[in-house]
Amino acid sequence: MTRMDPSKATTAKQLRPYTRPLIKNAWYVVGWAEEFGEEPFARRILNEPILFYRATSGEPVAVLDVCPHKLAPMRLGQRIGDDMQCGYHGLRFDKHGVCVHNPQGNGIIPPNAKLKSYPTLERHGAVWIWMGDPAKADAGLIPDFSHIDDPKRRSVKGGHHVNCNYMMMVENLMDLGHIIFLHSQTGGLENLVLGESKTGNDNGTITDQRLYHDIATPNLFADHMDVTRCDFWTDIRWNAPSAIRNHAGAAPCGHARGDRSTDQLGSHFLTPETHDTTHYFYAHSRNYALDDDAGDEIWRHWQRTALKAEDSMVAEAIQGVVPQAEELGVEMIVLSTDLSGIRVNRILEEMAQAEESDG
Amino acid sequence: MTRMDPSKATTAKQLRPYTRPLIKNAWYVVGWAEEFGEEPFARRILNEPILFYRATSGEPVAVLDVCPHKLAPMRLGQRIGDDMQCGYHGLRFDKHGVCVHNPQGNGIIPPNAKLKSYPTLERHGAVWIWMGDPAKADAGLIPDFSHIDDPKRRSVKGGHHVNCNYMMMVENLMDLGHIIFLHSQTGGLENLVLGESKTGNDNGTITDQRLYHDIATPNLFADHMDVTRCDFWTDIRWNAPSAIRNHAGAAPCGHARGDRSTDQLGSHFLTPETHDTTHYFYAHSRNYALDDDAGDEIWRHWQRTALKAEDSMVAEAIQGVVPQAEELGVEMIVLSTDLSGIRVNRILEEMAQAEESDG
Amino acid sequence: MTRMDPSKATTAKQLRPYTRPLIKNAWYVVGWAEEFGEEPFARRILNEPILFYRATSGEPVAVLDVCPHKLAPMRLGQRIGDDMQCGYHGLRFDKHGVCVHNPQGNGIIPPNAKLKSYPTLERHGAVWIWMGDPAKADAGLIPDFSHIDDPKRRSVKGGHHVNCNYMMMVENLMDLGHIIFLHSQTGGLENLVLGESKTGNDNGTITDQRLYHDIATPNLFADHMDVTRCDFWTDIRWNAPSAIRNHAGAAPCGHARGDRSTDQLGSHFLTPETHDTTHYFYAHSRNYALDDDAGDEIWRHWQRTALKAEDSMVAEAIQGVVPQAEELGVEMIVLSTDLSGIRVNRILEEMAQAEESDG
Repeated sequence: MTRMDPSKATTAKQLRPYTRPLIKNAWYVVGWAEEFGEEPFARRILNEPILFYRATSGEPVAVLDVCPHKLAPMRLGQRIGDDMQCGYHGLRFDKHGVCVHNPQGNGIIPPNAKLKSYPTLERHGAVWIWMGDPAKADAGLIPDFSHIDDPKRRSVKGGHHVNCNYMMMVENLMDLGHIIFLHSQTGGLENLVLGESKTGNDNGTITDQRLYHDIATPNLFADHMDVTRCDFWTDIRWNAPSAIRNHAGAAPCGHARGDRSTDQLGSHFLTPETHDTTHYFYAHSRNYALDDDAGDEIWRHWQRTALKAEDSMVAEAIQGVVPQAEELGVEMIVLSTDLSGIRVNRILEEMAQAEESDG
Repeated sequence: MTRMDPSKATTAKQLRPYTRPLIKNAWYVVGWAEEFGEEPFARRILNEPILFYRATSGEPVAVLDVCPHKLAPMRLGQRIGDDMQCGYHGLRFDKHGVCVHNPQGNGIIPPNAKLKSYPTLERHGAVWIWMGDPAKADAGLIPDFSHIDDPKRRSVKGGHHVNCNYMMMVENLMDLGHIIFLHSQTGGLENLVLGESKTGNDNGTITDQRLYHDIATPNLFADHMDVTRCDFWTDIRWNAPSAIRNHAGAAPCGHARGDRSTDQLGSHFLTPETHDTTHYFYAHSRNYALDDDAGDEIWRHWQRTALKAEDSMVAEAIQGVVPQAEELGVEMIVLSTDLSGIRVNRILEEMAQAEESDG
Repeated sequence: MTRMDPSKATTAKQLRPYTRPLIKNAWYVVGWAEEFGEEPFARRILNEPILFYRATSGEPVAVLDVCPHKLAPMRLGQRIGDDMQCGYHGLRFDKHGVCVHNPQGNGIIPPNAKLKSYPTLERHGAVWIWMGDPAKADAGLIPDFSHIDDPKRRSVKGGHHVNCNYMMMVENLMDLGHIIFLHSQTGGLENLVLGESKTGNDNGTITDQRLYHDIATPNLFADHMDVTRCDFWTDIRWNAPSAIRNHAGAAPCGHARGDRSTDQLGSHFLTPETHDTTHYFYAHSRNYALDDDAGDEIWRHWQRTALKAEDSMVAEAIQGVVPQAEELGVEMIVLSTDLSGIRVNRILEEMAQAEESDG
């Protein structure tokens, strides 16, 4: 019903992050290490249904959750040692996805009887999967999140499912200009004035640093600081495609990022379940109150409110608008706070194009 | 699976009302005046998500419910005076949809930072919106429904949402041949014989008048009449695209439409929410029992039963059949009772074609 | 995102049973005879919405559940003698679908005012419908299921709805290699070794016979046998497109299929509701415990567990994988247990092609 007009060119470009193909040659977090045990479970990653379990040797196993005989999900079957037996006709596959037993009729195993197998590894308290060409699965590409199991910190891990393309959450984290509006009640972050702001691009690692001077001590840190006013900062680091570290903290005025800081390292992993749904895994690793369970609850509350009830709620609402945005004739605009998000998108656009021309 | 055959041509033509594009250059009722207050609310009209509120001056405001920055719905934000502040990054828009404040970074307001704004006005106890070219929004095109707030009448207003194209409800009202079957129980209208019947087309205003002689006084009027038999009539008037007035009443035999009538003016506004869903707003304005609350309940009951449980139930059931009708090879038929509905459809077909060639 | 590669050819061929057009020129069971009474009810068969009732003469009636006037479902109307009156405008249709009364306006009945009518008949305790060319509806094509109302047997009838293409259930029954895995708990059928196995194709009737020697007496028969070990067999017979008889039983070792057998004849009718959903009707007709209600419960339990919670659960899970199987690059494999299912598919493929070229 709506004609194309020149303004659409801008809008189409702005919408691109949410319509772009997913990046396959990359490590993604598929869950916290604690989730992976004897019991197999299925999780969809980049729209592939995958069965996960931990082998007796301890290594995480990831195979396609589809038996090649009649397409029954393998999760309906039974684990036998390190093998999985299909629950329908009893075909048995080892942890590499190779069929090792056919209990039916002549017992011959067809040469192509196998489950697709995915490179995985456990690092920084999480299990990671490589969804693209296995030959390119270089463990060195996993960014440093060693703070998660750093004994000098205490981590509160969590996660939830979001009904949006993963980029809505990535951009949300790369543009913390939203915290003084969306999280103002939850974080006690109302009416702050941004003091210093710095962005960077260190060989594909994008950074965005913000500092607010002399503010009322935010809720998050108030219990563990003896000042009523403080400096507050957020140092964001992004690694492709969707692993984000947010080093944030508060300190007596004039001491930001210094020894007297009460800080935490936030870890945010946005793993596409499908093109338009996302697994969101996060941890908050604080450097204080290491023996205090009540300190955990402050961060769990933050995860439930800021990350789920606020960030994810808005992201899901935006997801509802995206398919109709062009037809509605919305001319999207860009603000200065979007700079880091734009840098991230440029890198992902190049990765997507490289995969398309490879693929 | 089904081959095309010549009978399909007829069916396709009969199906056209339910598959036709929606008319944009027209006034639509978006709600009763009472709904519009300080608190903003969102309602989808002709498939556009729109935010409504009443300005401090009293005029109704309608702007697109989509922030042009990141596409967050404006309804998640906050009203500040007559402005709306986006809940995500704090952009502020005035009641005309113009961005008046950017609290982020350099604070510059991009020139195209605006919300689409829609002409609205309040008339006859309802708020109306113009969905097409604002230059064509002539208030004189709103048909006369002054009986709704006529002090010599008492109006019972209501509304509900229907899961069908709006034409199913329009045709329903233009063809009251259905009342003696679909509403026979509810209205006490069983086994009536149509006495007189007249249709008209006065310069695009379609009328359909029916009269039943000497019938048992219908439930709707029995409490307020002292006769057990009466004449009963329905005078329907349609104005494009979907505003219908039904002047209906009962009178002692031989006195239909005269001074001794117990009558009411029904107002029916069918506003497309999407192509296949409809907001249905209605009022019944009676000329009797003006101080009697129990008189209201008779009409509320009629609205719940005849308009919702019967008319809308059938319309939704038909909506379920429409997408499959051609494949099923149903050859649709036309009856003499459909005449006014056909006239309405001819006018709307011309309007749709005019918009398409303009568009 | 996935390139086509040669392996896809195999997969596409294996997927064909679940994507093939439905066969129209065939008898399908639409319900057990007991369901058909005075009260009309609607059921979708091969994606056509059909209204069923039993005429006063006793014969089952099947007409399209769509009034040709405004497309209202006929099920919303009223039965008057052997006619159906549309609930919207009162058009009346006889049991052959011919319009016999128009109560509106001039009362003229348009020549094409009719409901499509379907050949039906009652046989073997069930009602059957012919969905294709009525001229081809030969009652002699209905296969023999006379055991269902054989007075020397007692039948337990049932049915449920399955969210899958009917072929997933047909293949399931043609390949009872699955019973020792999927039904091992329910049936007490664990770790059996197939003794003898024989398949046949008798002029389009496909058979698949399996015998297990000297096994622990299965749960299903244990209450009615005085041996702890037995022979157990399943003799499957398939008739196009989806009527399957499973003669199964247990006997003292060495006496399979003989006089001393405790056996039952299972009847399985898989009737497509739509391309991807199925009405599943079944009966188990035993030759023992004819006066024992508790004997019924054993088979009802089997229907609830083996047929619904196990077979249909797996079939629905497979249905969820099918649309994505090619994109996932799954190379489907064939096992020797699939032979009878492959024969069935070859016949259905020919029937589908014949219908397509007929048109």
